[in-house]
Amino acid sequence: MLNEIHKQLDALYPEMVEIRRFLHQYPELSFHETKTAQYIADFYEKLGIPYQTNVGGNGVIATLKGGKPGKTVALRADFDALPIQDEKDVPYKSKVDGVMHACGHDGHTATLLMLAKTMMSFQEDLPGTIVFLHQHAEEYAPGGAKPIIESGAIDHVDAVFGTHLWATTPFGVLQTTKDVFMAGTDRFTITIHGQGGHGAYPHETKDAIVIGSQLITQLQQIVSRRLDPLETAVLTIGVFEAGTTFNVIADKAKIVGTVRFLNTAVQEQVIEEMEKVIKGVCVSSDASYSFDYVKGYPPLVNHAEEAELVLKAGEKIEEIHTAEEVLPVMGGEDFAYYTMKKPGAYFFTGAQKEGNEFPHHHPKFDIEERALPVAAKTLIQAYFDYQK
Amino acid sequence: MLNEIHKQLDALYPEMVEIRRFLHQYPELSFHETKTAQYIADFYEKLGIPYQTNVGGNGVIATLKGGKPGKTVALRADFDALPIQDEKDVPYKSKVDGVMHACGHDGHTATLLMLAKTMMSFQEDLPGTIVFLHQHAEEYAPGGAKPIIESGAIDHVDAVFGTHLWATTPFGVLQTTKDVFMAGTDRFTITIHGQGGHGAYPHETKDAIVIGSQLITQLQQIVSRRLDPLETAVLTIGVFEAGTTFNVIADKAKIVGTVRFLNTAVQEQVIEEMEKVIKGVCVSSDASYSFDYVKGYPPLVNHAEEAELVLKAGEKIEEIHTAEEVLPVMGGEDFAYYTMKKPGAYFFTGAQKEGNEFPHHHPKFDIEERALPVAAKTLIQAYFDYQK
Amino acid sequence: MLNEIHKQLDALYPEMVEIRRFLHQYPELSFHETKTAQYIADFYEKLGIPYQTNVGGNGVIATLKGGKPGKTVALRADFDALPIQDEKDVPYKSKVDGVMHACGHDGHTATLLMLAKTMMSFQEDLPGTIVFLHQHAEEYAPGGAKPIIESGAIDHVDAVFGTHLWATTPFGVLQTTKDVFMAGTDRFTITIHGQGGHGAYPHETKDAIVIGSQLITQLQQIVSRRLDPLETAVLTIGVFEAGTTFNVIADKAKIVGTVRFLNTAVQEQVIEEMEKVIKGVCVSSDASYSFDYVKGYPPLVNHAEEAELVLKAGEKIEEIHTAEEVLPVMGGEDFAYYTMKKPGAYFFTGAQKEGNEFPHHHPKFDIEERALPVAAKTLIQAYFDYQK
Amino acid sequence: MLNEIHKQLDALYPEMVEIRRFLHQYPELSFHETKTAQYIADFYEKLGIPYQTNVGGNGVIATLKGGKPGKTVALRADFDALPIQDEKDVPYKSKVDGVMHACGHDGHTATLLMLAKTMMSFQEDLPGTIVFLHQHAEEYAPGGAKPIIESGAIDHVDAVFGTHLWATTPFGVLQTTKDVFMAGTDRFTITIHGQGGHGAYPHETKDAIVIGSQLITQLQQIVSRRLDPLETAVLTIGVFEAGTTFNVIADKAKIVGTVRFLNTAVQEQVIEEMEKVIKGVCVSSDASYSFDYVKGYPPLVNHAEEAELVLKAGEKIEEIHTAEEVLPVMGGEDFAYYTMKKPGAYFFTGAQKEGNEFPHHHPKFDIEERALPVAAKTLIQAYFDYQK
Repeated sequence: MLNEIHKQLDALYPEMVEIRRFLHQYPELSFHETKTAQYIADFYEKLGIPYQTNVGGNGVIATLKGGKPGKTVALRADFDALPIQDEKDVPYKSKVDGVMHACGHDGHTATLLMLAKTMMSFQEDLPGTIVFLHQHAEEYAPGGAKPIIESGAIDHVDAVFGTHLWATTPFGVLQTTKDVFMAGTDRFTITIHGQGGHGAYPHETKDAIVIGSQLITQLQQIVSRRLDPLETAVLTIGVFEAGTTFNVIADKAKIVGTVRFLNTAVQEQVIEEMEKVIKGVCVSSDASYSFDYVKGYPPLVNHAEEAELVLKAGEKIEEIHTAEEVLPVMGGEDFAYYTMKKPGAYFFTGAQKEGNEFPHHHPKFDIEERALPVAAKTLIQAYFDYQK
Repeated sequence: MLNEIHKQLDALYPEMVEIRRFLHQYPELSFHETKTAQYIADFYEKLGIPYQTNVGGNGVIATLKGGKPGKTVALRADFDALPIQDEKDVPYKSKVDGVMHACGHDGHTATLLMLAKTMMSFQEDLPGTIVFLHQHAEEYAPGGAKPIIESGAIDHVDAVFGTHLWATTPFGVLQTTKDVFMAGTDRFTITIHGQGGHGAYPHETKDAIVIGSQLITQLQQIVSRRLDPLETAVLTIGVFEAGTTFNVIADKAKIVGTVRFLNTAVQEQVIEEMEKVIKGVCVSSDASYSFDYVKGYPPLVNHAEEAELVLKAGEKIEEIHTAEEVLPVMGGEDFAYYTMKKPGAYFFTGAQKEGNEFPHHHPKFDIEERALPVAAKTLIQAYFDYQK
Repeated sequence: MLNEIHKQLDALYPEMVEIRRFLHQYPELSFHETKTAQYIADFYEKLGIPYQTNVGGNGVIATLKGGKPGKTVALRADFDALPIQDEKDVPYKSKVDGVMHACGHDGHTATLLMLAKTMMSFQEDLPGTIVFLHQHAEEYAPGGAKPIIESGAIDHVDAVFGTHLWATTPFGVLQTTKDVFMAGTDRFTITIHGQGGHGAYPHETKDAIVIGSQLITQLQQIVSRRLDPLETAVLTIGVFEAGTTFNVIADKAKIVGTVRFLNTAVQEQVIEEMEKVIKGVCVSSDASYSFDYVKGYPPLVNHAEEAELVLKAGEKIEEIHTAEEVLPVMGGEDFAYYTMKKPGAYFFTGAQKEGNEFPHHHPKFDIEERALPVAAKTLIQAYFDYQK
Repeated sequence: MLNEIHKQLDALYPEMVEIRRFLHQYPELSFHETKTAQYIADFYEKLGIPYQTNVGGNGVIATLKGGKPGKTVALRADFDALPIQDEKDVPYKSKVDGVMHACGHDGHTATLLMLAKTMMSFQEDLPGTIVFLHQHAEEYAPGGAKPIIESGAIDHVDAVFGTHLWATTPFGVLQTTKDVFMAGTDRFTITIHGQGGHGAYPHETKDAIVIGSQLITQLQQIVSRRLDPLETAVLTIGVFEAGTTFNVIADKAKIVGTVRFLNTAVQEQVIEEMEKVIKGVCVSSDASYSFDYVKGYPPLVNHAEEAELVLKAGEKIEEIHTAEEVLPVMGGEDFAYYTMKKPGAYFFTGAQKEGNEFPHHHPKFDIEERALPVAAKTLIQAYFDYQK
């Protein structure tokens, strides 16, 4: 049957590209992707596969019950876009100002829709049940995965698989890990409250810029000195905003950043040490502060067995010449919530486009579209292998 | 004659207040103070004192030649306002949104106009020539004093005196120094050019925020370690701006600030040391930079003899109970240019308003109006004493 | 045969302890361990196993050729001690002032000698050849392993195994890795050359202490910002020495430290970044510097196959309840040189002593002596398994 | 009479030089200068001027009551040496290893002794009483001045004068101020108590060197940001001592330094800010500390009238071509205690030696000996002028 499925997926390649490019032109921001959700729902309506809308927000879930007994497996694709201005020069460039599918979720959606269309033809002989899980809002914490899970949508699912078309991995390569695969990603805002004043009279002020600079310098010690060198963490300050003009001492400094980590013990330790450093720097300067730390997605941890299954599935796909275990990636993914709840694995499908090597989230980001059927084949292979 | 002059100034007090309050309601920004200049010109026109307009920009200079021989002495008042929103709750509050006489130049102008009106009555017996120098654009370097001087306006002047109504000095107090009185004030912009990137991959970037923080921390050593402890300098960073969002590493950081000093040797040393520190920090981080240093007003240096004369003049004014030498002030003044060219002295006329102790440039700044005739009396006393 | 060997090793336990305690009382520093070498040589002399002395320095190598054909396998034990004052209160406390077997090399030696004595009894039936490799000078780079290898001593060896009695791993546990096991360890000395002077005149000096502090602060960025977060490195400053008295500004600062890493690409990157940071800090301060970086032992990389063999060997030993793969350890070992030259693996034999949990190199360090026969059994098991 | 005195002082020049050179060869450290005290006592004994020994320690005070009525004036000379190795190549080089008159106190003593011998000849006509105050232990706080004063030795004195032969002021120049002349000088020791450990495991430690470096960097803000820019202060770290070897993280860091200031309000502010900074840095790092701050000599404040008198006295001395007011000097002097108790002034007598421009406390320090009679003439001139 898989042979037949592959043939049909290949035959649907033009439609797959068409859908992807259509979605690419009409991107929608996280939590606002109502038209895309409608588009997906309409598609299943036309196909005749039963579906639910507004799952945990804008989520759409279609369920294809096979004619043969078997396990229930969810295949997940996300469909939100990013607040980035599309700077590519292609016919399918974004038509929405300042919004862009700069992460490939358009491709994920097209892949899953074409896989659904294909599998509809094989329903009778299909063992088990495929849950086509179209998730909204992956790009912006708290994300769509959490409310979808909380809605009970995967309660009866046995396992969850998902893939990311990955623009910096060559076509023909599948990558995953048997443990942590992607990082936990938090964000924080520190506000230093000093005391402003005239630039000529520093002694009458508490200089928020000098205090903030001291803080950023001292925060470097957390990664360099206070964490186990064998652990992995990143503490990045993305924004430093303070002051209005050259001769006035700023009364406050806003410092915004992100923390990345591969396990939650490190996360807790970083938070604790940040608190200490911020407090100490403010004691030193008689300043006060607010520290707003928002936990984002937890680390995405693959289940070893399912990851092994994905690697072996990959080896069976003609276009995939390499299916490899890699080091974790410091980016985050709310797929993490699925594998916290159910067995499952997430993997990268190599989608590097020749001549376009811009990374994800870049204004010129694009993907190799030939990777879409490859992703579909790997997902369905994993589905079948899981039935055994 | 001085007795008579005092009487007349006291009689003009209501008009002085009226003019000051009128100007207070219609403030104009530096280099844009055309209506104020017109107001002043109209006043001299009506008085019948010959005057020139558009001197070095918006400057207005009126010349009252006395009936008796004597020296030519310029008395200077500035008339520009600041980009500050008036937050006082008074009937004469600024009617111009975002612009305010938050430094008392309205008072300076009212003082000088009423002094002109008064002295007009005494023209016949007046020894020497009074030059009423109404200067525009004191608040914003390169300022109005320089072009006024370059226009030749004080070439025939023997000396220049000026006063600032000073809101943090009590009424009845006159303050000056016999040497440096106010600081040199420069401004600078440093831009750190690092390399941006994803917040999770610091090793692929050159983190402009960390580099900038390091720079600000290290710049502290200039004042603390590299200048003669007996010298005076301030190096203030007023603005630190870098980054756009929490998970993107900033490619550049903009750092804007001011340098204050009491002599130009220190100024040169600070510039040299800043250059060294910035360069070194960038070498450390393989980053590049631009460093734009704009010299503003030089230190205002009083001439000892003229300052002494002012102190003694102050002692002769009834309302002044204290005429004292003080330490220099770290604020700047383009009156500095006059005393670089001609003998002269600048002084503060105490104008602290009871119940309003907000400093200059504060949105609630106000002055004690009784100080206006005191300023006028001191200036004309200095004028007469200088004739001897 | 292994059963018999175990029995004999158990029977030799008292002698094993006696030897270990004797050596414990007479420790010798790295490169000066001549009496210990003589003790070992005498032992083999008495046993009648042929041996060589002065191998690559103080090394002693005995070779037991078995009666059956097979491979040649070296088993390595080091025998030098440390410049630490023994502070234990035990009868076998060090009798040499300021020198102590604070790392367990006394135990390694006793283990290997008793294994030799045991195997002598089984020579006839022994397949292959056992090389008993007693190495001097492991504690102090450039170490003894390198010259021993350069002497050709392991040229005819097929594989090398070794173990460390590990005081922080519980008795009954064997630990190793299938890749990097221990860190590369370098040392460096940075000297900042500033300019000294009177403490009251900082502007006439270049303050080496302030410069050095700045340097140490800025060096934190290497690990926190400039290395791939998934890589592992430690940059520790162990010594900061500058100045002689409170009121004199120091002309130089001596900064001594170590760098740890798990692969040499990271090592090279750290060196390059250190050079950059040091140079930049000195440019900032117009100071000069010398930077002496001494590469020590490379990372110890186990061969996967031999490590697997060791893990399985461990499972066969009765006393070992856990044989596990662990994360690498940031300490260094010149066993690294053997596995760069020949297949082999290094492992830890749990030797935590109840009631004494002081780490290696601590003045109160001690080991659980029951671990000695366990180490011997594991080594000989690995030897036999390797013959297959 | 002064003419005669000058003649006699000039005639005594060879003896003056001889005494100075003798003392130069036999220097004694502060609080241990017993032989020098005996030498001085013997001198007065031979002269027949009554004297007291062991005043407040090793002090010697001789009193010459003149034949005419007048005021009692103390002239002070200190006589201790420094723990410095004499590196000059002269016949009168120090014969005491590691001890040297590197500040000119030998010259002060010779000057005062020769002045005493001279004035003995004029006793009958002398108005008032000269107190020759030979003070021990100026170089090491708490110093000799304080116990001498506490002994009551200057209770009956009307004024105190003193001079320092100053090696960086040209011969023929007299310098003083009418207010603060020399700085207050304190010393402090900060000990950071972190937690030591193996250099490869920073996360198990609290790295005292990194904490100390952070502290020193942050202490720079006190002078640069927290003091009035018009005030003067120096905060110098003279010693940073931490760690023993390259691969062990130091458990503590010792930081020793000095604070200089011209008024005690600044002193109190520096102490308060240091406390804050140290505390904050330790909070940041979860470390603890001890902070031992020892107040040394207070600022030396001249009395305006007596300083004016000294300046005018200087103008009357033939060899002095310039008697000038200067800025304060950041070095300290326990002469400060005398002017806190009695009217008085301290001044510098220019003693720069041609071809030797090494500063005070330098191993090659030397003075121009022709300055000794100049110092004597100025002191006695001040004495006489004070009688009027």
